[in-house]
Amino acid sequence: MGPGEDASESDREHAYQLGRAIAREGWSLLTGGRNQGVMDSASRGAKEAGGLTIGILPSADKAGLSRYVDVPIVTGIGEARNNINVLSSDVVFACGMGPGTASEVALAVKGRRNVILLNVSDQAARFFVELDPNRVHLATGAEHAVETARRVLK
Amino acid sequence: MGPGEDASESDREHAYQLGRAIAREGWSLLTGGRNQGVMDSASRGAKEAGGLTIGILPSADKAGLSRYVDVPIVTGIGEARNNINVLSSDVVFACGMGPGTASEVALAVKGRRNVILLNVSDQAARFFVELDPNRVHLATGAEHAVETARRVLK
Amino acid sequence: MGPGEDASESDREHAYQLGRAIAREGWSLLTGGRNQGVMDSASRGAKEAGGLTIGILPSADKAGLSRYVDVPIVTGIGEARNNINVLSSDVVFACGMGPGTASEVALAVKGRRNVILLNVSDQAARFFVELDPNRVHLATGAEHAVETARRVLK
Amino acid sequence: MGPGEDASESDREHAYQLGRAIAREGWSLLTGGRNQGVMDSASRGAKEAGGLTIGILPSADKAGLSRYVDVPIVTGIGEARNNINVLSSDVVFACGMGPGTASEVALAVKGRRNVILLNVSDQAARFFVELDPNRVHLATGAEHAVETARRVLK
Repeated sequence: MGPGEDASESDREHAYQLGRAIAREGWSLLTGGRNQGVMDSASRGAKEAGGLTIGILPSADKAGLSRYVDVPIVTGIGEARNNINVLSSDVVFACGMGPGTASEVALAVKGRRNVILLNVSDQAARFFVELDPNRVHLATGAEHAVETARRVLK
Repeated sequence: MGPGEDASESDREHAYQLGRAIAREGWSLLTGGRNQGVMDSASRGAKEAGGLTIGILPSADKAGLSRYVDVPIVTGIGEARNNINVLSSDVVFACGMGPGTASEVALAVKGRRNVILLNVSDQAARFFVELDPNRVHLATGAEHAVETARRVLK
Repeated sequence: MGPGEDASESDREHAYQLGRAIAREGWSLLTGGRNQGVMDSASRGAKEAGGLTIGILPSADKAGLSRYVDVPIVTGIGEARNNINVLSSDVVFACGMGPGTASEVALAVKGRRNVILLNVSDQAARFFVELDPNRVHLATGAEHAVETARRVLK
Repeated sequence: MGPGEDASESDREHAYQLGRAIAREGWSLLTGGRNQGVMDSASRGAKEAGGLTIGILPSADKAGLSRYVDVPIVTGIGEARNNINVLSSDVVFACGMGPGTASEVALAVKGRRNVILLNVSDQAARFFVELDPNRVHLATGAEHAVETARRVLK
């Protein structure tokens, strides 16, 4: 999870590395499916490393689908699909921060998923760790994020 | 699409053949994902023929997931997920009939998808063909259903 | 429930009478909320008879809201909101028929609601009564529809 | 919006005062509809002051409905209904903080709604104001919250 059109260059680079690391681990990557920002970069990274990519689109058609998504799910439910993103994930990686991503991290905590934050501000890290110290983890990079996920999924 | 716990033996047999035929065509199979009735039999057929199977669960967890589903999507939105099933499909096959299946055929017509009906009653066939004669098609068996789909997808 | 832009003159007239009869009964009217067809006419009838009107919009904003709706609910989930319409209703009236309405009648049966059909074709009546003879009822007019609802709600 | 079963005594007291102030302003109150915490206390306050109360339930039936809700909407879509809560509101008040509330504040910002925070931690205030300084406002009490809402709604 992470910003779409408002993603920074750094968000996208971290997302690409994270997508690669997830696929190399043998895991499937699930994103919001659009051809922008963190969703697109993570999907590209996972595809290049030979992984399976799933995209949960907010729209009622495939306009704006990332070309790196193997399995597009067309929900037509707008931002309400954010809860599907987190419920369908064994662990949630948030790479960068924005309103949509913040809603996903909060919904993940609500849904009792572990969340790993990457490339977020000090304020965001403090707030979400305070929200649930047992489920929200901070990672310093893509490899560390995947190592943390491996540990919490045991 | 098709009945779950209320599926007849004939619904399940047609669903199994349909799953096989869909996978042999090189298509992915998307169902409601549960371990019952048409969803389960179609997924089994597709898996045995080497296909990719996607399951859109109504529940907020993976309880009741068919073991023949490769990609489970956990929606947590109950029967509202029926609209996701049809929006995510290029063509909708309905195998057998019940309230949930009827809602999916109707939503498919609303979403301008082609629908192919298999193993339905005379009343169901007449009603849905009347609802949209251009998008609702009748098939006599799994092979005919896939042939019809191939034709309408051109 | 009933057709929007494709509603016939007869659908709208029945809907207006139904809205009036529902409000005179002291019941709240819940519709799909848009300023078209059965939704709009039923809401107008209920308002003119002093009732409370609720509208469950498919869109993510209030564009297209009927001016006869007191309580607009903005869902942003498209046709998936049809399931909210039926779950929020004690009894479902379908006035006229189309793909969206058909999905609502089917979802109502799935959700174990009583459904009363008004101004539908012979095919539609036969199909839905066959789907659930205990929950689907036919009415000859607005007054008969409300009488039937009163009986099944006991 | 605010915590349900995890609401503090202070959250509930602020919610009650907020419900009263909203109703006295002549506004309708929309909450998550359950008989717990902030939802219940705010609805009680609004009812006692003569207001109209709407409750958007996550469940597929009315179990757990607050008895202070006039218009219950039964969504059956779980936490995905949080987006309906914010889209249906002209302004969002968050009273206290928890995972569900955090998701609603984030979705409100995403949906370009003004949000007024009441009785939240320093971390929460800093994070959400950083997320959108133009739309997120801090209030010191129920009266101040309503005054702020009146100003931003102009």
